[in-house]
Amino acid sequence: MTASETDDRLSAQFAFLNEADRLKSVLRATTLVDGSRRENSGEHSWHLALYAMTLADQADPAVKIDRVIRMLLLHDLVEIDVGDVPIHSKGGTAHGSTDTQEAEAKAADRIFGLLPPDLAAEFRALWDEFEAAETPDALFAKSLDRVQPVMANLMSGGGTWVEYEVTSEQLDQRVGSKIAKGAPRLWDWVRAKTRAWFEP
Amino acid sequence: MTASETDDRLSAQFAFLNEADRLKSVLRATTLVDGSRRENSGEHSWHLALYAMTLADQADPAVKIDRVIRMLLLHDLVEIDVGDVPIHSKGGTAHGSTDTQEAEAKAADRIFGLLPPDLAAEFRALWDEFEAAETPDALFAKSLDRVQPVMANLMSGGGTWVEYEVTSEQLDQRVGSKIAKGAPRLWDWVRAKTRAWFEP
Ligand SMILES: [Ca+2]
Repeated sequence: MTASETDDRLSAQFAFLNEADRLKSVLRATTLVDGSRRENSGEHSWHLALYAMTLADQADPAVKIDRVIRMLLLHDLVEIDVGDVPIHSKGGTAHGSTDTQEAEAKAADRIFGLLPPDLAAEFRALWDEFEAAETPDALFAKSLDRVQPVMANLMSGGGTWVEYEVTSEQLDQRVGSKIAKGAPRLWDWVRAKTRAWFEP
Repeated sequence: MTASETDDRLSAQFAFLNEADRLKSVLRATTLVDGSRRENSGEHSWHLALYAMTLADQADPAVKIDRVIRMLLLHDLVEIDVGDVPIHSKGGTAHGSTDTQEAEAKAADRIFGLLPPDLAAEFRALWDEFEAAETPDALFAKSLDRVQPVMANLMSGGGTWVEYEVTSEQLDQRVGSKIAKGAPRLWDWVRAKTRAWFEP
Protein backbone atom coordinates (compact mmCIF):
# COMPACT_ATOMS: atom_id res chain seq x y z
CA MET A 1 0.00 0.00 0.00
CA THR A 2 1.43 3.43 -0.93
CA ALA A 3 1.64 6.21 1.67
CA SER A 4 -1.25 7.98 0.00
CA GLU A 5 -3.39 4.82 0.00
CA THR A 6 -2.68 4.39 3.74
CA ASP A 7 -3.71 8.02 4.28
CA ASP A 8 -6.99 7.50 2.44
CA ARG A 9 -7.66 4.33 4.37
CA LEU A 10 -6.99 6.01 7.72
CA SER A 11 -9.28 8.87 6.72
CA ALA A 12 -12.10 6.38 6.12
CA GLN A 13 -11.35 4.48 9.33
CA PHE A 14 -11.53 7.69 11.36
CA ALA A 15 -14.63 8.93 9.53
CA PHE A 16 -16.31 5.80 10.92
CA LEU A 17 -14.77 6.03 14.41
CA ASN A 18 -15.71 9.71 14.76
CA GLU A 19 -19.25 9.03 13.56
CA ALA A 20 -19.51 6.10 16.00
CA ASP A 21 -18.90 8.58 18.84
CA ARG A 22 -22.50 9.73 18.41
CA LEU A 23 -23.76 6.45 19.88
CA LYS A 24 -22.76 7.91 23.28
CA SER A 25 -25.59 10.42 22.86
CA VAL A 26 -28.35 7.88 22.08
CA LEU A 27 -30.38 7.30 25.23
CA ARG A 28 -32.07 4.01 26.10
CA ALA A 29 -35.19 3.46 28.21
CA THR A 30 -33.16 1.59 30.85
CA THR A 31 -31.30 3.44 33.60
CA LEU A 32 -27.91 2.75 35.16
CA VAL A 33 -27.88 0.17 37.95
CA ASP A 34 -27.97 2.99 40.53
CA GLY A 35 -31.00 4.57 38.80
CA SER A 36 -29.21 7.95 38.53
CA ARG A 37 -29.86 8.50 34.80
CA ARG A 38 -30.76 6.73 31.58
CA GLU A 39 -28.09 4.59 29.98
CA ASN A 40 -26.65 5.49 26.58
CA SER A 41 -26.10 2.94 23.84
CA GLY A 42 -22.31 3.38 23.78
CA GLU A 43 -21.77 2.47 27.44
CA HIS A 44 -24.46 -0.23 27.08
CA SER A 45 -22.41 -1.81 24.28
CA TRP A 46 -19.33 -1.80 26.50
CA HIS A 47 -21.20 -3.41 29.35
CA LEU A 48 -22.54 -6.14 27.05
CA ALA A 49 -19.07 -6.95 25.75
CA LEU A 50 -18.00 -7.31 29.39
CA TYR A 51 -21.04 -9.55 29.96
CA ALA A 52 -19.79 -11.78 27.14
CA MET A 53 -16.30 -12.05 28.68
CA THR A 54 -17.71 -12.72 32.15
CA LEU A 55 -20.58 -15.08 31.29
CA ALA A 56 -18.80 -17.06 28.56
CA ASP A 57 -19.35 -20.31 30.47
CA GLN A 58 -23.12 -19.87 30.04
CA ALA A 59 -22.79 -20.15 26.25
CA ASP A 60 -23.16 -23.28 24.15
CA PRO A 61 -19.71 -24.85 23.55
CA ALA A 62 -20.05 -23.98 19.84
CA VAL A 63 -20.07 -20.24 20.63
CA LYS A 64 -16.94 -18.23 19.82
CA ILE A 65 -16.88 -15.53 22.49
CA ASP A 66 -14.52 -13.21 20.63
CA ARG A 67 -16.99 -13.08 17.71
CA VAL A 68 -19.81 -12.41 20.19
CA ILE A 69 -17.82 -9.53 21.67
CA ARG A 70 -17.25 -8.01 18.22
CA MET A 71 -20.94 -8.42 17.38
CA LEU A 72 -21.97 -6.68 20.59
CA LEU A 73 -19.55 -3.80 20.02
CA LEU A 74 -21.28 -3.11 16.68
CA HIS A 75 -24.86 -4.19 17.34
CA ASP A 76 -26.36 -0.80 18.25
CA LEU A 77 -24.51 1.53 15.85
CA VAL A 78 -27.62 1.85 13.64
CA GLU A 79 -29.28 3.66 16.56
CA ILE A 80 -27.21 6.72 15.64
CA ASP A 81 -29.79 7.25 12.87
CA VAL A 82 -32.80 5.36 14.21
CA GLY A 83 -32.62 5.79 18.00
CA ASP A 84 -33.27 3.09 20.54
CA VAL A 85 -36.61 1.28 20.24
CA PRO A 86 -37.56 0.19 23.79
CA ILE A 87 -38.56 -3.47 23.96
CA HIS A 88 -41.67 -2.79 26.07
CA SER A 89 -42.90 0.26 24.08
CA LYS A 90 -46.16 0.12 22.09
CA GLY A 91 -47.28 -2.98 23.96
CA GLY A 92 -44.08 -4.77 22.97
CA THR A 93 -44.74 -4.53 19.20
CA ALA A 94 -42.49 -1.64 18.06
CA HIS A 95 -39.21 -3.50 18.35
CA GLY A 96 -39.40 -5.94 15.45
CA SER A 97 -41.64 -3.89 13.12
CA THR A 98 -40.89 -3.81 9.38
CA ASP A 99 -40.54 -0.01 9.51
CA THR A 100 -37.89 -0.24 12.20
CA GLN A 101 -36.03 -3.00 10.37
CA GLU A 102 -35.97 -1.04 7.10
CA ALA A 103 -34.74 2.11 8.82
CA GLU A 104 -32.02 0.12 10.59
CA ALA A 105 -30.83 -1.50 7.35
CA LYS A 106 -30.57 1.95 5.75
CA ALA A 107 -28.61 3.20 8.75
CA ALA A 108 -26.26 0.22 8.48
CA ASP A 109 -25.65 1.05 4.79
CA ARG A 110 -24.70 4.61 5.68
CA ILE A 111 -22.63 4.01 8.83
CA PHE A 112 -20.66 0.90 7.78
CA GLY A 113 -20.34 2.54 4.35
CA LEU A 114 -17.98 5.11 5.88
CA LEU A 115 -15.35 2.37 6.29
CA PRO A 116 -12.89 1.04 3.68
CA PRO A 117 -14.77 -1.63 1.66
CA ASP A 118 -13.13 -4.69 3.29
CA LEU A 119 -13.97 -3.51 6.82
CA ALA A 120 -17.43 -2.33 5.76
CA ALA A 121 -18.22 -5.84 4.48
CA GLU A 122 -16.78 -7.53 7.58
CA PHE A 123 -18.65 -5.34 10.08
CA ARG A 124 -21.88 -5.46 8.08
CA ALA A 125 -21.78 -9.26 7.98
CA LEU A 126 -21.42 -9.38 11.76
CA TRP A 127 -24.34 -6.98 12.20
CA ASP A 128 -26.50 -8.95 9.74
CA GLU A 129 -25.69 -12.15 11.62
CA PHE A 130 -26.69 -10.56 14.92
CA GLU A 131 -29.95 -9.28 13.47
CA ALA A 132 -30.84 -12.65 11.91
CA ALA A 133 -30.44 -14.31 15.35
CA GLU A 134 -29.86 -17.79 13.95
CA THR A 135 -26.22 -18.78 14.58
CA PRO A 136 -25.08 -19.87 18.07
CA ASP A 137 -22.91 -16.71 18.32
CA ALA A 138 -25.83 -14.41 17.48
CA LEU A 139 -28.24 -16.24 19.79
CA PHE A 140 -25.85 -15.87 22.72
CA ALA A 141 -25.24 -12.20 21.89
CA LYS A 142 -29.02 -11.63 21.80
CA SER A 143 -29.43 -13.35 25.17
CA LEU A 144 -26.92 -10.97 26.76
CA ASP A 145 -28.55 -7.95 25.11
CA ARG A 146 -31.84 -9.02 26.73
CA VAL A 147 -30.53 -9.97 30.15
CA GLN A 148 -28.54 -6.81 30.89
CA PRO A 149 -31.61 -4.48 31.10
CA VAL A 150 -33.41 -7.10 33.26
CA MET A 151 -30.52 -6.87 35.71
CA ALA A 152 -30.57 -3.05 35.58
CA ASN A 153 -34.32 -3.07 36.34
CA LEU A 154 -33.87 -5.52 39.22
CA MET A 155 -31.06 -3.40 40.70
CA SER A 156 -32.77 -0.03 40.24
CA GLY A 157 -36.22 -0.92 41.63
CA GLY A 158 -38.18 -1.90 38.53
CA GLY A 159 -37.16 0.67 35.91
CA THR A 160 -38.92 0.18 32.56
CA TRP A 161 -41.23 -2.52 34.04
CA VAL A 162 -42.87 0.18 36.14
CA GLU A 163 -42.76 2.77 33.34
CA TYR A 164 -44.44 0.49 30.77
CA GLU A 165 -46.60 -1.48 33.29
CA VAL A 166 -45.02 -4.79 32.28
CA THR A 167 -46.36 -8.03 33.79
CA SER A 168 -44.33 -11.07 34.71
CA GLU A 169 -45.94 -12.96 31.78
CA GLN A 170 -45.05 -10.20 29.30
CA LEU A 171 -41.47 -10.29 30.55
CA ASP A 172 -41.32 -14.07 30.03
CA GLN A 173 -42.72 -13.67 26.52
CA ARG A 174 -40.85 -10.63 25.21
CA VAL A 175 -37.55 -11.16 27.00
CA GLY A 176 -37.25 -14.47 28.83
CA SER A 177 -37.95 -16.65 25.81
CA LYS A 178 -35.09 -14.92 23.95
CA ILE A 179 -32.64 -15.16 26.83
CA ALA A 180 -33.48 -18.86 27.18
CA LYS A 181 -32.68 -19.53 23.51
CA GLY A 182 -29.01 -18.57 23.86
CA ALA A 183 -28.42 -19.05 27.59
CA PRO A 184 -31.03 -21.33 29.22
CA ARG A 185 -29.39 -21.75 32.65
CA LEU A 186 -28.81 -18.02 32.84
CA TRP A 187 -32.50 -17.34 32.30
CA ASP A 188 -33.46 -19.90 34.99
CA TRP A 189 -31.32 -18.02 37.47
CA VAL A 190 -32.48 -14.55 36.47
CA ARG A 191 -36.13 -15.60 36.23
CA ALA A 192 -36.18 -16.68 39.87
CA LYS A 193 -35.11 -13.14 40.75
CA THR A 194 -37.69 -11.48 38.49
CA ARG A 195 -40.46 -13.72 39.95
CA ALA A 196 -39.50 -12.52 43.42
CA TRP A 197 -39.72 -8.92 42.20
CA PHE A 198 -43.09 -9.30 40.45
CA GLU A 199 -44.66 -11.44 43.22
CA PRO A 200 -43.00 -10.28 46.40
CA MET B 1 -20.89 -28.33 38.66
CA THR B 2 -23.97 -28.75 40.90
CA ALA B 3 -26.98 -26.42 40.55
CA SER B 4 -25.99 -24.69 43.77
CA GLU B 5 -22.38 -24.21 42.59
CA THR B 6 -23.69 -22.68 39.35
CA ASP B 7 -25.89 -20.35 41.43
CA ASP B 8 -22.94 -19.23 43.55
CA ARG B 9 -20.82 -18.71 40.45
CA LEU B 10 -23.54 -16.62 38.76
CA SER B 11 -23.93 -14.55 41.93
CA ALA B 12 -20.22 -13.71 41.81
CA GLN B 13 -20.30 -13.02 38.06
CA PHE B 14 -23.18 -10.56 38.52
CA ALA B 15 -21.62 -8.95 41.60
CA PHE B 16 -18.77 -8.01 39.26
CA LEU B 17 -20.99 -6.97 36.33
CA ASN B 18 -23.22 -4.81 38.54
CA GLU B 19 -20.19 -3.18 40.16
CA ALA B 20 -18.68 -2.55 36.70
CA ASP B 21 -21.77 -0.48 35.87
CA ARG B 22 -20.30 2.30 38.03
CA LEU B 23 -17.61 2.96 35.40
CA LYS B 24 -20.38 4.74 33.44
CA SER B 25 -20.36 7.42 36.14
CA VAL B 26 -16.59 8.09 36.09
CA LEU B 27 -15.95 11.23 34.07
CA ARG B 28 -12.79 11.84 32.03
CA ALA B 29 -11.20 15.16 31.14
CA THR B 30 -11.90 14.60 27.43
CA THR B 31 -15.26 15.51 25.89
CA LEU B 32 -17.31 13.74 23.26
CA VAL B 33 -16.34 14.48 19.65
CA ASP B 34 -19.17 17.04 19.44
CA GLY B 35 -17.93 18.78 22.62
CA SER B 36 -21.38 18.47 24.24
CA ARG B 37 -20.20 16.93 27.53
CA ARG B 38 -17.33 15.07 29.16
CA GLU B 39 -16.87 11.44 28.23
CA ASN B 40 -17.31 8.69 30.81
CA SER B 41 -14.90 5.78 31.16
CA GLY B 42 -17.50 3.14 30.24
CA GLU B 43 -18.32 4.59 26.84
CA HIS B 44 -14.61 5.41 26.36
CA SER B 45 -13.81 1.71 26.84
CA TRP B 46 -16.41 0.77 24.22
CA HIS B 47 -15.00 3.30 21.76
CA LEU B 48 -11.47 1.96 22.28
CA ALA B 49 -12.57 -1.62 21.63
CA LEU B 50 -14.12 -0.36 18.40
CA TYR B 51 -10.84 1.42 17.62
CA ALA B 52 -9.05 -1.93 17.98
CA MET B 53 -11.47 -3.65 15.56
CA THR B 54 -11.22 -0.80 13.07
CA LEU B 55 -7.50 -0.04 13.21
CA ALA B 56 -6.27 -3.64 13.48
CA ASP B 57 -4.18 -3.22 10.32
CA GLN B 58 -2.08 -0.59 12.11
CA ALA B 59 -0.87 -3.17 14.63
CA ASP B 60 2.31 -5.22 14.45
CA PRO B 61 1.55 -8.63 12.85
CA ALA B 62 2.31 -10.29 16.23
CA VAL B 63 -0.65 -8.52 17.86
CA LYS B 64 -3.77 -10.58 18.66
CA ILE B 65 -6.60 -8.11 18.25
CA ASP B 66 -9.13 -10.11 20.27
CA ARG B 67 -6.80 -10.00 23.29
CA VAL B 68 -6.35 -6.25 22.75
CA ILE B 69 -10.14 -5.83 22.71
CA ARG B 70 -10.48 -7.75 25.98
CA MET B 71 -7.69 -5.72 27.55
CA LEU B 72 -9.35 -2.46 26.53
CA LEU B 73 -12.73 -3.56 27.88
CA LEU B 74 -11.11 -4.04 31.31
CA HIS B 75 -8.39 -1.42 31.33
CA ASP B 76 -10.22 1.38 33.14
CA LEU B 77 -12.29 -0.58 35.71
CA VAL B 78 -9.92 0.48 38.51
CA GLU B 79 -11.17 4.04 37.96
CA ILE B 80 -14.37 3.05 39.80
CA ASP B 81 -12.30 3.48 42.98
CA VAL B 82 -9.54 5.82 41.85
CA GLY B 83 -11.17 8.06 39.24
CA ASP B 84 -9.63 9.08 35.94
CA VAL B 85 -6.21 10.72 36.16
CA PRO B 86 -5.99 13.14 33.21
CA ILE B 87 -2.78 12.72 31.25
CA HIS B 88 -2.07 16.46 31.08
CA SER B 89 -2.91 17.22 34.74
CA LYS B 90 -0.18 18.38 37.18
CA GLY B 91 2.15 19.21 34.31
CA GLY B 92 1.83 15.68 32.95
CA THR B 93 3.26 14.02 36.08
CA ALA B 94 0.16 12.68 37.91
CA HIS B 95 -0.58 9.84 35.56
CA GLY B 96 2.25 7.42 36.29
CA SER B 97 2.91 8.41 39.93
CA THR B 98 3.59 5.68 42.53
CA ASP B 99 0.57 6.82 44.57
CA THR B 100 -1.74 6.39 41.60
CA GLN B 101 -0.25 3.00 40.74
CA GLU B 102 -0.67 1.71 44.30
CA ALA B 103 -4.26 2.91 44.51
CA GLU B 104 -5.03 1.29 41.15
CA ALA B 105 -3.52 -2.05 42.21
CA LYS B 106 -5.68 -2.00 45.35
CA ALA B 107 -8.74 -1.22 43.25
CA ALA B 108 -7.90 -4.13 40.94
CA ASP B 109 -7.69 -6.46 43.97
CA ARG B 110 -11.15 -5.39 45.11
CA ILE B 111 -12.96 -5.25 41.77
CA PHE B 112 -11.56 -8.38 40.07
CA GLY B 113 -11.85 -10.07 43.48
CA LEU B 114 -15.63 -9.99 43.11
CA LEU B 115 -15.36 -12.62 40.34
CA PRO B 116 -15.05 -16.42 40.70
CA PRO B 117 -11.31 -17.18 41.22
CA ASP B 118 -10.61 -18.45 37.67
CA LEU B 119 -12.09 -15.34 36.04
CA ALA B 120 -10.50 -13.05 38.63
CA ALA B 121 -7.07 -14.44 37.74
CA GLU B 122 -7.71 -14.24 33.99
CA PHE B 123 -8.96 -10.64 34.04
CA ARG B 124 -6.29 -9.51 36.48
CA ALA B 125 -3.55 -10.97 34.27
CA LEU B 126 -4.89 -9.03 31.27
CA TRP B 127 -5.02 -5.80 33.31
CA ASP B 128 -1.48 -6.36 34.67
CA GLU B 129 -0.25 -6.96 31.12
CA PHE B 130 -1.87 -3.72 29.94
CA GLU B 131 -0.35 -1.75 32.81
CA ALA B 132 3.13 -3.20 32.25
CA ALA B 133 3.00 -2.03 28.61
CA GLU B 134 5.62 -4.48 27.39
CA THR B 135 3.94 -7.09 25.18
CA PRO B 136 2.93 -6.25 21.59
CA ASP B 137 -0.75 -6.58 22.57
CA ALA B 138 -0.40 -4.16 25.50
CA LEU B 139 1.66 -1.67 23.48
CA PHE B 140 -0.99 -1.55 20.76
CA ALA B 141 -3.79 -1.22 23.35
CA LYS B 142 -1.88 1.67 24.98
CA SER B 143 -1.46 3.37 21.59
CA LEU B 144 -5.21 3.31 21.03
CA ASP B 145 -5.91 4.56 24.57
CA ARG B 146 -3.65 7.54 23.78
CA VAL B 147 -4.84 8.29 20.27
CA GLN B 148 -8.59 8.39 20.96
CA PRO B 149 -8.49 11.53 23.16
CA VAL B 150 -6.19 13.21 20.60
CA MET B 151 -8.88 12.65 17.98
CA ALA B 152 -11.61 13.93 20.36
CA ASN B 153 -9.56 17.09 20.99
CA LEU B 154 -8.98 17.62 17.26
CA MET B 155 -12.69 17.18 16.51
CA SER B 156 -13.97 19.32 19.40
CA GLY B 157 -11.68 22.34 18.94
CA GLY B 158 -8.78 21.60 21.29
CA GLY B 159 -10.45 20.19 24.43
CA THR B 160 -7.95 19.33 27.16
CA TRP B 161 -5.06 20.95 25.22
CA VAL B 162 -6.71 24.32 25.78
CA GLU B 163 -7.78 23.49 29.35
CA TYR B 164 -4.26 22.40 30.44
CA GLU B 165 -2.34 24.77 28.10
CA VAL B 166 -0.55 21.89 26.39
CA THR B 167 2.15 22.64 23.78
CA SER B 168 2.85 20.66 20.65
CA GLU B 169 6.12 19.46 22.22
CA GLN B 170 4.39 18.27 25.39
CA LEU B 171 1.88 16.38 23.28
CA ASP B 172 4.71 14.66 21.38
CA GLN B 173 6.39 13.73 24.66
CA ARG B 174 3.45 12.66 26.82
CA VAL B 175 1.29 11.12 24.14
CA GLY B 176 2.92 10.85 20.73
CA SER B 177 5.90 8.82 21.90
CA LYS B 178 3.51 6.24 23.39
CA ILE B 179 1.29 6.07 20.34
CA ALA B 180 4.36 5.62 18.14
CA LYS B 181 5.54 2.62 20.21
CA GLY B 182 2.51 0.50 19.33
CA ALA B 183 1.30 2.11 16.10
CA PRO B 184 4.03 4.20 14.40
CA ARG B 185 2.24 4.87 11.08
CA LEU B 186 -0.89 5.86 12.97
CA TRP B 187 1.04 8.47 14.94
CA ASP B 188 2.62 9.86 11.75
CA TRP B 189 -0.86 10.42 10.33
CA VAL B 190 -2.36 11.89 13.51
CA ARG B 191 0.70 14.02 14.24
CA ALA B 192 0.35 15.84 10.92
CA LYS B 193 -3.16 16.80 12.02
CA THR B 194 -2.08 17.91 15.50
CA ARG B 195 0.74 20.03 13.96
CA ALA B 196 -1.82 21.79 11.81
CA TRP B 197 -3.91 22.47 14.94
CA PHE B 198 -1.03 23.79 17.07
CA GLU B 199 0.57 25.82 14.25
CA PRO B 200 -2.32 26.89 12.08
CA1 LIG C 1 -7.89 5.05 29.55
